[in-house]
Amino acid sequence: MPTAAVDQLTSLLGDAVVTGGPELAAVREDRSGWRSPHPALAVVHAASVEDVQAVMRIASSTGTPVVPRGAGTGLAGGAISSDGSIVLDLARMDRILEISEVDQLAVVEAGVLNGDLDRAARERGLWFAPDPASRAISSIGGNIATNAGGLLCAKYGVTRESVLGLAAVLADGTLLRTGHRTVKGVTGYDLTALLTGSEGTLAIIVEATVRLLPLVVGETHTVAAAFPDVEAAGVAVGGVAGARIRPALLELIDPVGLARVTEHLGAAALVGTPLADFAPGETFLLAQCDAGDAAADAEAIAHVFEAAGGRVVRSTDAATGERLLDIRRAMHPALASRGNVLIEDVAVPRSRLPEMFRAIADIGARYEVEIPTLAHAGDGNLHPNFVFEGDEVPERIWAAADELFRTGVRLGGTLTGEHGVGLLKRRWLAEEVGDTSVELQRRIKEVFDPRGILNPGVMFDPVKP
Amino acid sequence: MPTAAVDQLTSLLGDAVVTGGPELAAVREDRSGWRSPHPALAVVHAASVEDVQAVMRIASSTGTPVVPRGAGTGLAGGAISSDGSIVLDLARMDRILEISEVDQLAVVEAGVLNGDLDRAARERGLWFAPDPASRAISSIGGNIATNAGGLLCAKYGVTRESVLGLAAVLADGTLLRTGHRTVKGVTGYDLTALLTGSEGTLAIIVEATVRLLPLVVGETHTVAAAFPDVEAAGVAVGGVAGARIRPALLELIDPVGLARVTEHLGAAALVGTPLADFAPGETFLLAQCDAGDAAADAEAIAHVFEAAGGRVVRSTDAATGERLLDIRRAMHPALASRGNVLIEDVAVPRSRLPEMFRAIADIGARYEVEIPTLAHAGDGNLHPNFVFEGDEVPERIWAAADELFRTGVRLGGTLTGEHGVGLLKRRWLAEEVGDTSVELQRRIKEVFDPRGILNPGVMFDPVKP
Repeated sequence: MPTAAVDQLTSLLGDAVVTGGPELAAVREDRSGWRSPHPALAVVHAASVEDVQAVMRIASSTGTPVVPRGAGTGLAGGAISSDGSIVLDLARMDRILEISEVDQLAVVEAGVLNGDLDRAARERGLWFAPDPASRAISSIGGNIATNAGGLLCAKYGVTRESVLGLAAVLADGTLLRTGHRTVKGVTGYDLTALLTGSEGTLAIIVEATVRLLPLVVGETHTVAAAFPDVEAAGVAVGGVAGARIRPALLELIDPVGLARVTEHLGAAALVGTPLADFAPGETFLLAQCDAGDAAADAEAIAHVFEAAGGRVVRSTDAATGERLLDIRRAMHPALASRGNVLIEDVAVPRSRLPEMFRAIADIGARYEVEIPTLAHAGDGNLHPNFVFEGDEVPERIWAAADELFRTGVRLGGTLTGEHGVGLLKRRWLAEEVGDTSVELQRRIKEVFDPRGILNPGVMFDPVKP
Repeated sequence: MPTAAVDQLTSLLGDAVVTGGPELAAVREDRSGWRSPHPALAVVHAASVEDVQAVMRIASSTGTPVVPRGAGTGLAGGAISSDGSIVLDLARMDRILEISEVDQLAVVEAGVLNGDLDRAARERGLWFAPDPASRAISSIGGNIATNAGGLLCAKYGVTRESVLGLAAVLADGTLLRTGHRTVKGVTGYDLTALLTGSEGTLAIIVEATVRLLPLVVGETHTVAAAFPDVEAAGVAVGGVAGARIRPALLELIDPVGLARVTEHLGAAALVGTPLADFAPGETFLLAQCDAGDAAADAEAIAHVFEAAGGRVVRSTDAATGERLLDIRRAMHPALASRGNVLIEDVAVPRSRLPEMFRAIADIGARYEVEIPTLAHAGDGNLHPNFVFEGDEVPERIWAAADELFRTGVRLGGTLTGEHGVGLLKRRWLAEEVGDTSVELQRRIKEVFDPRGILNPGVMFDPVKP
């Protein structure tokens, strides 16, 4: 059967079907640090909706698992080859089909890179708000399949809020269109939202109609501060919400992370920033305000930060703002220079951030592991990081992560704010959403994918035969 | 069987089960002008989640249809008694369980009125953005069940964007919890979004966790104008989008509607407004800007309006802004004073508004019927209205509406922007979303409601046995 599927695909799509070499190795990995034990039968490069439909017809008739893959930048193992699978690569479907200034929307193929769409939109005075901090390398299709988040979500929403409609190929090759080109529309169930975040388990997203926003005018104001400890920074975060200000971004680096960042950047890069006088134990917080009342909002945030004990540096232009933001951007390189990095992704209500930080410190101490943590503090999404040697995440780190997840859920949060369940977190799915929900979700999957060929093993444990 | 269900309910819930009198007559209607031919077996007033669970257990075991009902303000016949049904009234579940300033959210029972939540939020410096223009009388549960829209959606989003999580009772009485208290969260399929807008056909929404926004500070600026014709107003709407301004609201009244409104208000009420010199054939357009750059945005909008041939009046304070908005508010009373009103609800992409207005005028002429039309022009949602005598919508009006729907869909729009499918529009469902989508939706319904007892006849045609 596997051979039959590959033979049929090759005779139909020729060179677009790759059955060996480095490409097969490449699709065993994403950016999660996880490597699949299973090579794919083939990587198929789809160039059109019709290609995807043909692949699904063959996969469906032969019962061959299909793993849809965009740019391969996922962080949960959701788009890597699984046992006996075809990896369906959508990267060549990279056309921006339409940008409408009056309707403030774009129609794109799934493989378009987020940053390419944003750049094209900006040339027309618009922008694409969902930026999962991987704009240059991640695809819109992948962003939608994971309902990607990012730094701007508290103010501008998650990816779902920007998706107006989809075209998706069902397991049997049928093309489904959902949603519309209008802001509003309530005809029937919201299949657009159901497919958004479904991680390739319900259908293959091939095209999206997405909302664009008018470009933000005016200068960006940035406020950065170092706080004596993470509790003080937590008070500042609560203070910003209490002052009813919505900064475009509000990013926090905990003391463990900040030690690595300052070490990595070196003293010269920190001159003129709040970290020029960095002392161990300090926490970094950065707010950026765009649009409208940016200056007044930044002023108010600076007061909140100072009142909470922060050593504040302000910037009233984009260029010096970028320098402050570089501190935040240095987090991942600082960790990656020391080993492999497992990036976790819990989210808790903003009010529970101080508790979560205490829990992380406690878990780190008990498991004797450093957990440098970055947080999108504006929306309560934390990325506790684990640095390790070798190809496999050590069991001790999974045990610590397990405690992290449970703590996040106990605090009213979630085990994945924006990365997705993928392969890495499916064992915790039921713990968060409950058995009733898992059962409904499995049965929704059966409606879309009765033979179970769409990304099996992702999100749900494989069904025991 | 029907008697068995009512007997069991009465023995369990006593006075909360009403089997005769004016209440049974009341639940045969909503605000659509539609009257059900079927009286309910009983109206059951639930006071708690446990009540709802008990009702669903009895309904499930006896195969009795259940129609969930909030405040009964729907406009599509989605919450009126159907053949042999129990109407499950959630109005007594009206507690605001929590408002969190730091997490900027509220937890409410389904029967809480939208305006009551908003008022409570405002006391804490927050507000609830979804306002379907029925704030004072519609319930949050109903708003969510229909994914209600309103005037502010182009800027602040539809109801779905404000729903973080739900508690819902399934057909068999099981309680399902979806979503979270965080802005982000991608664990599993988005059942929160799937239930939002499902019109009581998948589960009974009993509780919601909703997002609140910081109160908008600063003065509201209003720009109103009369245009020589609807085309000129359409150019102005396009011009606002082209200038990349997002007013909080942008409302349009077409010439037919404006004739009724000016007549209804009388000359005295129009002094100081652009309608003081009203001439037949003119179109009214009103924009309101809040927050940040309100003054600059209003200035720019005034220029756009003038360039498109508008006779502009500006207001820089809330009080005179309210006077201008009163013109828009007079639309429904002006029509209701002349007969029964069928309010339609198509939406088209903003760029197709001029075509849609031409089509409405053409349809009106061909069917010899007045179609006064109001539009949320910022999001392309139009409410063509039909005024008629007697209890039943005349066939001629349905025929005209049918053409309206088809035209809206052909222009890339939808047959219901915000009211829902209900009973009134289910015959057009497949035409808009296609047979593939309808089939998937029917099977999703079967997953949630295998016996078909949840609001049967709403959204989908009853299955022929």
